[in-house]
Amino acid sequence: MKVGVLGATGYAGQELVRLLHRHEEVKDLYLGSSSVAGEDYESVYPHWLDQKVGILQDENIPDLDVLFCALPHGLTAKKTSAFLARKIKVIDLGADFRLNSAEVYEEWYKIKHPASELLKDAVYGLPELYREQIRGRSLIANPGCYPTATLLALVPLLRKKLLQTGYLIIDAKSGVSGAGRGVSLGNHYAEVNENFKAYGVASHRHTPEIEQELSRAAGQLLNVNFTPHLVPMTRGMLVTIYAKVGEGIQEEELRRCWLEQYEQEEFIHVLPQGTWPQTKFSSGSNHAFLQLTLDQRTGNAVIIATIDNLIKGAAGQAIQNMNLAMGWPEGQGLQGTALWP
Amino acid sequence: MKVGVLGATGYAGQELVRLLHRHEEVKDLYLGSSSVAGEDYESVYPHWLDQKVGILQDENIPDLDVLFCALPHGLTAKKTSAFLARKIKVIDLGADFRLNSAEVYEEWYKIKHPASELLKDAVYGLPELYREQIRGRSLIANPGCYPTATLLALVPLLRKKLLQTGYLIIDAKSGVSGAGRGVSLGNHYAEVNENFKAYGVASHRHTPEIEQELSRAAGQLLNVNFTPHLVPMTRGMLVTIYAKVGEGIQEEELRRCWLEQYEQEEFIHVLPQGTWPQTKFSSGSNHAFLQLTLDQRTGNAVIIATIDNLIKGAAGQAIQNMNLAMGWPEGQGLQGTALWP
Amino acid sequence: MKVGVLGATGYAGQELVRLLHRHEEVKDLYLGSSSVAGEDYESVYPHWLDQKVGILQDENIPDLDVLFCALPHGLTAKKTSAFLARKIKVIDLGADFRLNSAEVYEEWYKIKHPASELLKDAVYGLPELYREQIRGRSLIANPGCYPTATLLALVPLLRKKLLQTGYLIIDAKSGVSGAGRGVSLGNHYAEVNENFKAYGVASHRHTPEIEQELSRAAGQLLNVNFTPHLVPMTRGMLVTIYAKVGEGIQEEELRRCWLEQYEQEEFIHVLPQGTWPQTKFSSGSNHAFLQLTLDQRTGNAVIIATIDNLIKGAAGQAIQNMNLAMGWPEGQGLQGTALWP
Amino acid sequence: MKVGVLGATGYAGQELVRLLHRHEEVKDLYLGSSSVAGEDYESVYPHWLDQKVGILQDENIPDLDVLFCALPHGLTAKKTSAFLARKIKVIDLGADFRLNSAEVYEEWYKIKHPASELLKDAVYGLPELYREQIRGRSLIANPGCYPTATLLALVPLLRKKLLQTGYLIIDAKSGVSGAGRGVSLGNHYAEVNENFKAYGVASHRHTPEIEQELSRAAGQLLNVNFTPHLVPMTRGMLVTIYAKVGEGIQEEELRRCWLEQYEQEEFIHVLPQGTWPQTKFSSGSNHAFLQLTLDQRTGNAVIIATIDNLIKGAAGQAIQNMNLAMGWPEGQGLQGTALWP
Repeated sequence: MKVGVLGATGYAGQELVRLLHRHEEVKDLYLGSSSVAGEDYESVYPHWLDQKVGILQDENIPDLDVLFCALPHGLTAKKTSAFLARKIKVIDLGADFRLNSAEVYEEWYKIKHPASELLKDAVYGLPELYREQIRGRSLIANPGCYPTATLLALVPLLRKKLLQTGYLIIDAKSGVSGAGRGVSLGNHYAEVNENFKAYGVASHRHTPEIEQELSRAAGQLLNVNFTPHLVPMTRGMLVTIYAKVGEGIQEEELRRCWLEQYEQEEFIHVLPQGTWPQTKFSSGSNHAFLQLTLDQRTGNAVIIATIDNLIKGAAGQAIQNMNLAMGWPEGQGLQGTALWP
Repeated sequence: MKVGVLGATGYAGQELVRLLHRHEEVKDLYLGSSSVAGEDYESVYPHWLDQKVGILQDENIPDLDVLFCALPHGLTAKKTSAFLARKIKVIDLGADFRLNSAEVYEEWYKIKHPASELLKDAVYGLPELYREQIRGRSLIANPGCYPTATLLALVPLLRKKLLQTGYLIIDAKSGVSGAGRGVSLGNHYAEVNENFKAYGVASHRHTPEIEQELSRAAGQLLNVNFTPHLVPMTRGMLVTIYAKVGEGIQEEELRRCWLEQYEQEEFIHVLPQGTWPQTKFSSGSNHAFLQLTLDQRTGNAVIIATIDNLIKGAAGQAIQNMNLAMGWPEGQGLQGTALWP
Repeated sequence: MKVGVLGATGYAGQELVRLLHRHEEVKDLYLGSSSVAGEDYESVYPHWLDQKVGILQDENIPDLDVLFCALPHGLTAKKTSAFLARKIKVIDLGADFRLNSAEVYEEWYKIKHPASELLKDAVYGLPELYREQIRGRSLIANPGCYPTATLLALVPLLRKKLLQTGYLIIDAKSGVSGAGRGVSLGNHYAEVNENFKAYGVASHRHTPEIEQELSRAAGQLLNVNFTPHLVPMTRGMLVTIYAKVGEGIQEEELRRCWLEQYEQEEFIHVLPQGTWPQTKFSSGSNHAFLQLTLDQRTGNAVIIATIDNLIKGAAGQAIQNMNLAMGWPEGQGLQGTALWP
Repeated sequence: MKVGVLGATGYAGQELVRLLHRHEEVKDLYLGSSSVAGEDYESVYPHWLDQKVGILQDENIPDLDVLFCALPHGLTAKKTSAFLARKIKVIDLGADFRLNSAEVYEEWYKIKHPASELLKDAVYGLPELYREQIRGRSLIANPGCYPTATLLALVPLLRKKLLQTGYLIIDAKSGVSGAGRGVSLGNHYAEVNENFKAYGVASHRHTPEIEQELSRAAGQLLNVNFTPHLVPMTRGMLVTIYAKVGEGIQEEELRRCWLEQYEQEEFIHVLPQGTWPQTKFSSGSNHAFLQLTLDQRTGNAVIIATIDNLIKGAAGQAIQNMNLAMGWPEGQGLQGTALWP
């Protein structure tokens, strides 16, 4: 099995390398990087010293079974049809194939979609919600980190019509690694540390992705308020969601819906009542944790989900998708609980 | 002018000492501490070395002009009438006099109110909203930190009927110092660092305080969803609020309402459009920063306010209240912008 | 293979559980905890939900092949001879068997050694330096975290007489998790965050352990200055060492000595010249990284080593020792590079 | 009194603005910035909103009484003689006038000194050590942050010949703000947080500055080992120093020497025996804290000093120098203890 990673020096790319390096089926690893091609991987990441991961390469992508694309949006889609023609399965960690509609993509990403003809072939790769559609596929759109946490919490409840859809408030918080390895004043240590702020208010590009999948679950078009915040920590993501429950619905029915959906899942955990998720429960692992309560005074459910933004929110989920696409056990290469403390 | 602080070794108490020490009208400072009475202040806080702040004392409270009570709830109220009888003005940083109703207090704090007969004499000390009622008063309930940030944002808008009240979602985030100096596993460094979590979901004691004051502003009883979260940082507080705007109300009217309310205020700042509050804007200062937008897709306003939880959210606001009670310039002893970075 | 952990809810204990849980030879895991016996492991650590680790137990230790003792000093030694009599191999992560001399133990730990008759049977379990002595042994003293980092750097150089011993300055820095899970004001988040300090100056209990092993390497008694500092981070340890090089010794000889010692080692890495260790290189892994330079202006070598204090500095090294004691591949269950970022 | 700041948007520049804004003698403030000239100060630093600090300006420096230059090395010296000719007192927070020797400057800074003829007119502005030489002066070299902490600790002891000079080990630790506001991967949040590393090993440019001043105190040329480290925190600096005490010297004599030097000082504090400095003791203030012990086992003194790198290590000390140059009370505008927690 030969597997490649485009964008292997970014944070999601590096996490892919770490996970693929210990994956039993992966024998050969191609590392792509346009910016530092020709260098040893360990010259970029010295903690890989002596691990013989290989040399970063550009352009001439060899014959591969699977290629992970961890590139900024707009770059992957241009090359995808060529990869597919070569029978390389493509798992895109970027945004190019997540939205079904090229128009919506163009509205939010402000560029023309580079390969809209492929959208119909892509599958939205959230295994716990769309497992059967993902199996054996060749073009998989790996979900965004915020959508992953949000959809795991809401989709089962919306499918079962347990929530009203008049307002859905998604107040999200992420560690700084989600912004990637590119330097900017906004991610400068002294500006982020001991600081907390919202960003992308009412304009973040994960909004249409969340709305697309929630609408699909609810069977009707709906809109959400989605507000991401930057937490002074490196890893971790937590979303706090507020929604009106359906007439007469009790907390127990919400909880039961989750348990039914997730009781067989290796990576999704409904916490015991009263134990609220902490981002550290997921840190360094592919596990997600859920909790909710129904506030009787307002009739709103308060729903919280947490994941590691770089693993279940990116590289780990991409490995799950590879495993499904190739027909291997879904959790292969992803075992292990969080690093604590 | 002789001023005292009960609970002078807690974080809010220490912040009071810092601010009072540089206050021009305060000549004499009484430091109360039941736990370490008899020790020099600098033996508890070595950074006060050589500043000659004084010795911590218990019990025999001398004749004072003003006494700040920074004690856990239930402890201050018992002693208050004796202080008032001695003509000592009392500014309570605890919760005992914030709620108008002893019943509501007992429901949320799970103890009988120790001095319900004094509730009618207490004023809720949020100067920018209730300035005239505070002037010259003898018993002032200093607001909680979460209520301060929330009320500064919402009260003007509710007074002008610019928001609907069907749902008010208050998603709040605080640094760890808000939990005080008492040690616990939940505030142990290794458990909090690189971690983010909600706490007190649908049960935090600042909820009835927020509801009381918002109901007063709206002229009708209302309920809120209030969810506090713990941010891995020491200082700072930010609240993200979601509310449906009134029929036909535009963003500009919301903004104009704030500007009219706050344009003369020394400590409250409406940021220019597009600049969102960061907790560090307030850190180490008494300043609050506000921003909002109207999400046209949902009709919800997204409203954000930030303060330093220990200053505008506790000790700084208490000094404002002292200044008003004594007839001094309201901002005395509180000048200065945030410490950056 | 049945393995036990005493002190399974402490940080080192929990890290042992994490590593043992994925260790191929370990089929059955006994979890000991005197404080919360009877509880599910996941009630203490919710991120273990659904992992079926087991119930915490007290007292009646079953028949085991290996028992890890992650208890405060003084507690393990009392019970050790009974374990050994039952043919249970003991790996002690505490301090009771690290010092060869009961007198030195009593001087630094201020208690009488509970089992000084066993000291002669114990081996100091630093595999890269004492591998052959560890193989097959039944009583292994797992080194302290600071000694591990220090000895990996200095022992090869001292054995080869490349350093003078007139002064050896060890300036050490550790993340807060090294202090364990017990709460105290000194490890309270708001007191540690955005703060840096020395502690245990000229009195830390790892000093005699370091001196014992350095003296053994140098073939002469020597003393060191050892000053630990607390870094506002959870994991990681870095030591900066200053020593006069031998007459005429060049940097290249120091480096060559290290390379000869460590070139076959799976976990010890001499970084390329000019790349200095960062604690994050080791974080979450069993790997150690080394670098040095010879400051020509002073004749002192500046030597830096970094490890993860909870893995190579505790639980990971203990697993190496188990593997050696049992005759398994030494790195089993310890694969994987650092979690980055 | 009219005062200017060149480099007013850097971190040291912004701290100067904060301190000057509350300084009673400063009526008019000129803000220089080549990069964002023409913008309001609050557009760069929104927390200055409504404070009316002014507009950033380039080039045409008006008539000023004092000009602070907070620019990278090499830029200030070129313009200095023109400023001096206009009777503007210059306080340089850069490195151009700290070293007495243009040759040493050129060796370490790798550029030709732009104004070596002015070196003889410059005074090294460390008030507690050279107060009388600073009074009334027109060209003051504000010391580096590491030298400030180091010299406060060592100069008195060396002047009194209480230390031997065979080896002086200075192991220094700084918060990230010392690296300034310029973005780089090395100061990217996700790379620095939960990480600790040395940098500039045996090559940092503060080395010759430290050696110059220590040699002057000792009355003989001497060399030091100086190793700076980066701590995952924003503010604060701590140096740990190891030196052999003179024959027969006891700890008490070292302490007495410090107390004699500093007992009248407003900003320098010798902590009570056994209380070790923490960077947070100084954070947000101009205060420095000192402690030492004599390790009888090695004959080495362990000496620790802490300051806020941006205040006593930069802007605060520069204000002290302005006060001395202008004949005002030395501590004016600098009152206040650390912000805690």
